[in-house]
Amino acid sequence: MQIQTENDAFVTMLREVVDPQDLQIGADIPATALRDWSDERGGVPLALVQPRTTAQVSAVMALCHAHGQPVVPQGGMTGLAGGAVPSTGAVLLSLRNIAGVEELNDAAGLMTVGAGTPLQVIQEAAAENGLMFGLDLGARGSCQIGGNIATNAGGNRVIRYGMTRDLVLGLEVVLADGTILPMMNKMPKNNAALDLKHLFIGSEGRLGIITRAVLRLHPGVGGANTALIALSGFDAALKLLRHAQTALSGRVSAFEVLWNDYYRSVTTIGGVRAPLGAEFPLYALIDMQGADPDAEAPAFQAMLERAMESGWALDVLLAQSQSDVLDFWALRDNVAELQRSFSPMINFDISVPQSQIGDCVERIRADLAQKFPGLANLYFGHIGDSNLHILVGPTPADDPDGRQVEACVYDVTRSFGGSISAEHGIGLHKKPWLSYSRSEAELSVLRQLKDTLDPTGILNPGKVL
Amino acid sequence: MQIQTENDAFVTMLREVVDPQDLQIGADIPATALRDWSDERGGVPLALVQPRTTAQVSAVMALCHAHGQPVVPQGGMTGLAGGAVPSTGAVLLSLRNIAGVEELNDAAGLMTVGAGTPLQVIQEAAAENGLMFGLDLGARGSCQIGGNIATNAGGNRVIRYGMTRDLVLGLEVVLADGTILPMMNKMPKNNAALDLKHLFIGSEGRLGIITRAVLRLHPGVGGANTALIALSGFDAALKLLRHAQTALSGRVSAFEVLWNDYYRSVTTIGGVRAPLGAEFPLYALIDMQGADPDAEAPAFQAMLERAMESGWALDVLLAQSQSDVLDFWALRDNVAELQRSFSPMINFDISVPQSQIGDCVERIRADLAQKFPGLANLYFGHIGDSNLHILVGPTPADDPDGRQVEACVYDVTRSFGGSISAEHGIGLHKKPWLSYSRSEAELSVLRQLKDTLDPTGILNPGKVL
Repeated sequence: MQIQTENDAFVTMLREVVDPQDLQIGADIPATALRDWSDERGGVPLALVQPRTTAQVSAVMALCHAHGQPVVPQGGMTGLAGGAVPSTGAVLLSLRNIAGVEELNDAAGLMTVGAGTPLQVIQEAAAENGLMFGLDLGARGSCQIGGNIATNAGGNRVIRYGMTRDLVLGLEVVLADGTILPMMNKMPKNNAALDLKHLFIGSEGRLGIITRAVLRLHPGVGGANTALIALSGFDAALKLLRHAQTALSGRVSAFEVLWNDYYRSVTTIGGVRAPLGAEFPLYALIDMQGADPDAEAPAFQAMLERAMESGWALDVLLAQSQSDVLDFWALRDNVAELQRSFSPMINFDISVPQSQIGDCVERIRADLAQKFPGLANLYFGHIGDSNLHILVGPTPADDPDGRQVEACVYDVTRSFGGSISAEHGIGLHKKPWLSYSRSEAELSVLRQLKDTLDPTGILNPGKVL
Repeated sequence: MQIQTENDAFVTMLREVVDPQDLQIGADIPATALRDWSDERGGVPLALVQPRTTAQVSAVMALCHAHGQPVVPQGGMTGLAGGAVPSTGAVLLSLRNIAGVEELNDAAGLMTVGAGTPLQVIQEAAAENGLMFGLDLGARGSCQIGGNIATNAGGNRVIRYGMTRDLVLGLEVVLADGTILPMMNKMPKNNAALDLKHLFIGSEGRLGIITRAVLRLHPGVGGANTALIALSGFDAALKLLRHAQTALSGRVSAFEVLWNDYYRSVTTIGGVRAPLGAEFPLYALIDMQGADPDAEAPAFQAMLERAMESGWALDVLLAQSQSDVLDFWALRDNVAELQRSFSPMINFDISVPQSQIGDCVERIRADLAQKFPGLANLYFGHIGDSNLHILVGPTPADDPDGRQVEACVYDVTRSFGGSISAEHGIGLHKKPWLSYSRSEAELSVLRQLKDTLDPTGILNPGKVL
C-alpha cells in the first residue's frame, strides 16, 4: 500500500497550508465537486481544498508543483464541456471561499471581486449602483466569475457587451509553481508591454489559477424594447441585423434567430405559446436595452417599420408588456422540454462566419438527413455573434455516445472555417475534435505555452489538448 | 574584414528569397526606414527587405533564425516609442508590400487585409460600404494596420469601439523560425482553446510578425452631435461622463477633458479660437456619432440640459455647424504649436484609474512645481479611457534627455497604480521605466514567453525588455 501511504503523506502536507475545515478527502468530498452540467464523468480525486486567500492558493500550488501533484481548479461546476470534472488522484482546488465584492468604484464603473463570487452577486451589486455587468447566462445563480473568466463565457448579451474577455480589466493569477502574478489593472488603456491576462482568459485552468479580478461595468439599464419578427430567410435576417445596428447606433442587445423547425418544436412539444404563426421560415428575437426604454421606443419602432417597408421583415410583434417579453424569451430559453422529448440529445455550440450560417444550416441538415434519417435537428442561435446552437436527437442506437453525429456536424463546421466551440470551451467533451478548428501550428504553440507555464503538467491535466 | 564577408554572404542568401527590387542595403535604404515619429535613434541596419507574400516573410524568417540574424519588423514608422527603429546590423522587415483589402464582407461587417494596409485605406473602404472601422488616430494616412495591431493602438474613439485589440477577429502571424501561424478567425465567438492572437496584439514585434488580419467593422456613421462643456472640476467630469453614458446608452464616442492650463495655452500660444471663456477649471469635449445625427440630437441635447440642471456642467456650447465641430476639436488636436513653444518638450501618455485622475494631476503638478520651478506642464486626455496626456517643457538644461522630469511624473503614476504607457507602447523610449508598471513576476513571464517563441532572440532585440 505504498501509494496510499504517499497520498496520506501528501494530504498531511496539504493540511498544513489550508484550514482544517477547508480540506476534504474520500467520501467527504461533496458530490457537487465531482460533476459539472455536462455528461462527462471524471475520475476519483485525492482531495478537495478550498483556500480562503491567494496566499493559501499559492501555498497549495507550490506544494503540488514540488510533488508533481495534479490539480483541477473548480468554480461553480456549471460548465458544459467537462473542463472541471476530477481527474483520478487530483487535488480539486475550489475558489468558492475567495468570494465577494472587494470594491465597487461607482464613478469609474469597475468592480474588484474574488474568483469565487457568483455571477448573479456581481450583477446585483452593479445594479444596486445604477450600473450593469454585461455578462449574463442561464447558470448565473451558480456559476462563479473565476470560471466565467477561465472559460471566456459568452451568453445572451455578447452582441452588445462582448465576451467575458471584454469585461475583464485585471486579474490576479497563481501560476503552477505557486508564483502570484499580480495584474490587477484598472485602466481600459494600458500598453506597458504585452497584456498577459489574455494568457489566462479562456485557458480552462491549464495555465494558471484565477484568484481575483477587476471587472468593467456598463451604464445601468432600466429595461428593453423587445420584438419578435418573422423573416423570409437567412439573408433577410442579416439585412435586418445590419439595418437595426445602424439605425440604433449599435444598441442592439440581443439578436436571436430561431429556424422554423425549432420554432415549431418549442411551440408544440416545448409547450410555449406561439406569438406568431408557425408558417415563416425564420424568426428573430431582438431587443435593445436602455436606461429609459420608453424614451428609446420611437427609434426602435421606426427601425421596425422601416424593416417592414423594406421587406426584410414579413411580420413584427412588438412586446407591449413584461408578459410579452417573457413569452418571447421563452421561445429561446425553454429547451429543457425539447431535450427531454428527444433524449439522448446533443446540444451543439458551433460558430461559423456570420454570412455563411444560413448555408451551413442547410448543409448540416442535408448531411444529417442522409446519414441519420429521421433524426431531429433544430437550429437556433446568437446570430449576431456568429454562434449557432443545434439540438440533435435522440442519438441513434448504433451511435450511443453520438460520435458519428458529432463527426457529421463538425465536418460541415470545419468546411465553413467554423469553430467546434463558440462559447462552451473544449474541456473533455470536445477534446477529440479540437484539430477541426485549430491548425497543427496553433496546437504546437498551445503545447509550448503549457510547457513554459506549467513545466510539470500538473494544472488540469488531460483537458483541452 | 571577416564580418563584412559574413554580411555579404547573408545578403546573398536573402536575395534568394525575395525579389531583387525588394532588398536594399547600405545607402540605398531609405531614410524613412531609419526613424519613427519619436526622437529615438537606432543603429545602422544590415538590409531592408520588403516581402510580397507571407511565404516570403516565412522564408526570410527561417533564414534569419538559422543564422541568428536580428530582425526589426516595420510598419508605417509612425510610432512614438522607437519600437521599430533599426538596431545595429539588423534586417529591417517592412510589411508595406503585403497590403490591400482582400475581402470586405458587407453582411457580417468584417474585412480581411494585408498588414501593410494604411489605416486610412481601411477606414475609407469601410465607409464606402456603409460601415466604419473604429480605430482612428492622427497618423491614419501613414500608419499601417500591422503596426496598429502590433502596438495595440488606441486613439480618439476607444471609449466607444475599444482599442485595436477589440477590433481584431483574426491574425496571420509568422513566428521567429518562419512557421506560419494561421489564426484568420472570422467569428466574434470562438472558444476552441486559448485565443492565441492575443500573444501578438501589443507585442511590439517581439513574438512574431503580423502578415494579415481579419478586422471587425461597426455600423456606419453619418456624423456626430458635439458639445464643449465647462466644468467645475474633475468630480464633475466623472459625473457628466457617467450621466452621458447612461442617458445615451453607451453611444458616447469621444470624451476628452482639457485642464484650464492646457485650454489657456492652446487658445493663446496655440492660436486656436476660445469658444468658451478661459475662467473654468476644466473643459470636456464630448461627441456622439450616429448614422443619423439629426435624429439623435434631441437625446443629446436633453442629456446636456440635465447636466446643466444638475450642476455637473457650468456652461455648454453645442456645435451648430461643421465649422463649430472643427473649432472644438482644434482645441484637442492643435498641440504642434505648443510643442514648438515649449521645445524640447515631453509628451507623456500615462493611464491612471479613472476616479483618481484628478488627484493624480494635482500631485504631478505639485511635484513638478517643487522640483522644476517654472516648467510648463499642461494636462488633457481621453478621460473616458483612463488616459492622461501631459505636455511638459522645455526640459531643464541640466536634464537634457528629460530623465529627471520623467522620473518625477512616473513616480506619481506608479503611486496611483497607473501605467507609464496607455497607448503608445514601450519600444525604446519607455523601456527604462517598464518596472514602474509591471511586477517582477510579470516581467519574468514576459521573458519566458520571449524565450519560448523566439529562442534565439532575433525578433526586435533590445526593445521593450
